[in-house]
Amino acid sequence: MVVSRLHETGIPVMRLDPADLPGKAVLSAEYAHGDFDGHLSVNGHVLSMRGLRSVWVRRPGEPAAHAAHPSPWLTAETGQALFGTLHSASTRWMNHPRNAEQARLKPWQLRVAHLSGFAVPPTVFTTAPRVAQQFTEEHRSVVVKSASGPPRDDPALALPTTLIGPDTDFSAVAAGPALLQRYIPKRADIRLTCVGDRLFAARKTAEPGQVDGRYGDTEHTWEAVPAPERIGKSVHEYVALAGLAYAAFDFAEDEDGIWWFLECNQGGQFGFVELETGQPISEAVARWLSPRKTDRRVTGSHW
Amino acid sequence: MVVSRLHETGIPVMRLDPADLPGKAVLSAEYAHGDFDGHLSVNGHVLSMRGLRSVWVRRPGEPAAHAAHPSPWLTAETGQALFGTLHSASTRWMNHPRNAEQARLKPWQLRVAHLSGFAVPPTVFTTAPRVAQQFTEEHRSVVVKSASGPPRDDPALALPTTLIGPDTDFSAVAAGPALLQRYIPKRADIRLTCVGDRLFAARKTAEPGQVDGRYGDTEHTWEAVPAPERIGKSVHEYVALAGLAYAAFDFAEDEDGIWWFLECNQGGQFGFVELETGQPISEAVARWLSPRKTDRRVTGSHW
Repeated sequence: MVVSRLHETGIPVMRLDPADLPGKAVLSAEYAHGDFDGHLSVNGHVLSMRGLRSVWVRRPGEPAAHAAHPSPWLTAETGQALFGTLHSASTRWMNHPRNAEQARLKPWQLRVAHLSGFAVPPTVFTTAPRVAQQFTEEHRSVVVKSASGPPRDDPALALPTTLIGPDTDFSAVAAGPALLQRYIPKRADIRLTCVGDRLFAARKTAEPGQVDGRYGDTEHTWEAVPAPERIGKSVHEYVALAGLAYAAFDFAEDEDGIWWFLECNQGGQFGFVELETGQPISEAVARWLSPRKTDRRVTGSHW
Repeated sequence: MVVSRLHETGIPVMRLDPADLPGKAVLSAEYAHGDFDGHLSVNGHVLSMRGLRSVWVRRPGEPAAHAAHPSPWLTAETGQALFGTLHSASTRWMNHPRNAEQARLKPWQLRVAHLSGFAVPPTVFTTAPRVAQQFTEEHRSVVVKSASGPPRDDPALALPTTLIGPDTDFSAVAAGPALLQRYIPKRADIRLTCVGDRLFAARKTAEPGQVDGRYGDTEHTWEAVPAPERIGKSVHEYVALAGLAYAAFDFAEDEDGIWWFLECNQGGQFGFVELETGQPISEAVARWLSPRKTDRRVTGSHW
C-alpha cells in the first residue's frame, strides 16, 4: 500500500532485503577526504546515499542469509557494511534501528507511558513467586501475558493473555519472569497509529468478558474515532521520548471511557485498520518518507 | 581494578551476570500509580532501582543462559524483564546499550570521526571486485581487515590486518564485503582512553614495517603522552555524537606526527595501558560511576 502511494507521486523506491547482500545486491561505501558516499545496487538499479531520502524498515531479513556460503561471521561482516553505511547517511528513518530496539522493551514502554501521562494498569514483572502472589491478592483480577511474544519456533508454547486469580500456583514463576497486569474490563479495543505527527485512532467494541482481542472472532469491526486531546498530547510525548517516527498504540477502553495504555508496537501493522476504517495511514507513511533532504547534516538526534 | 577503587571509597557494588537470571538472581519490577520501582537480588544482596547510581556494562552473558531449562524464548522473556527494568531506571550507563550497539558499526565510526574533525585514512567497504581494484590502484598501499573482528567460533579464519597491492585477485570480494583502507606508515600506535570528559593518551613506538599492532612482540611499551588540544576537541565531539561515556580510540601516528583515526572501541580494554603507563584510568571509571543520583528524571538524552 505504501509503495503504491509512492509510485503514484513519482517518488523512486528501492526494495532491499539484507538477506540478498552479497549476491543480488551490491554495496560500496567510500570514506575519504572528510566526506562519505555509498551506493547500493539491486537488480541493476543504483541508489546513492547522497540521494537517499528515507529508510522504511519492514521486517528485514538477516544479512547474507541467502549467500552461497552463509555463516555467522559473514552475517556479522555484511551487517557491519550495510548498517554502517546506512547509519552514515544523513537520512530519515522509520524507525531508526537504535530506537526501535529499545522501544521493544515492554517494561520500558510502561515507564515511558507513565512519563507521557497515559493511564497504565498496575503491572509487575517478577521471578519471585511471592511477589506474583502478593500482586494478585492486591489486584484480585489479573492477566498474565508474554513480554516478548510467542516463541518463534513453537508459538503454541505461549498462552494467550489469560485471566488468573490469587488461588493460582505461582511456584513456576521462579523458572522464568512473569508479566502480571491488573485486568481492565473493557468495552472496546483502541488502536492508535502515529505517523510522524499524524494520529489515526480506531475503536472496536469488545465482546463481553473478552480478554485477548487477538483470539476469537467478533462481529464488530474497527471504526475511526477521534483521539481525545489529552491522549494526543501523551502520544506526542511518548514518541518524542522514544525517538519513533511510527508507532502503533494499543489501549483498552474501560466502562468509564478511560483509555488504558497496554503497549506500543514500533513496527505494528496498520493495513487491517486502513482496510476497515478507510483511514489514509499508508498515505501518511508515504508522505513522511517523501521529502527530499535539504541540509540534514548528521547530529545526535538523527542517529 | 574498578571494583577495588569503588570498595576503597565505600561505594556499594553489585555484580550481576544476566546469565544467572532467573536462578541465582531474582528480579521484580513494579509499574503502578504513575511510578516505578524495581529490585534485583543477587546472593542475598538487594538493589533498588531507585538507589541505582550507575550501570557499568562489561561483557554481559546472555540472559537465562545458566537456567535449568534454557531456551531462546526464556532468553527473550528474561532479557525483556531485565533490560526493560534497567532501562526504566533513571541511571547513568557506561555505556548505554542502545548507543553501544550503534557505536560498534565500523563504517559509521569513520563517518562520525570525519564529522568530529579527525584525520581518517581513505577507506572503502565493498562487495564489488572492480571497486576494490580501483581503490587499491588509486592508493597503491592498502590494508585489508575485518569489520566485525575475528569469527568467534573460528578466530583463525580471519587474517590479521594485511598489506595488499593492485596485483591482488579481488574476485572473492563478491562473496563478502571487504574493508580496504589506505595504509598509514606509522612510527607509533596511539591508544586514547576517554572516560567521561577525562582523556588518557598513550603511545607505543612501532616496529619498522609493522602492520597489525595486535600481533608480534615488540620491545617497546606504552608510555603516557599528552593529547594534542585539537585531538581532545575531536574526541569530545565524537563521544557526544555517539552518546558514549567510555571509549577507547586507536590512532596510527605517521612520520609527520599526525594521528590517524583507525577505530573507536566503546568497550575497549584499559587494564594493559594502566599497568604500563600508571595512568589512573580505573580510578576515573570508578569516579564516573560514583555520583549519587540527584534528580535525574528520564529524558531523551538519558535513554
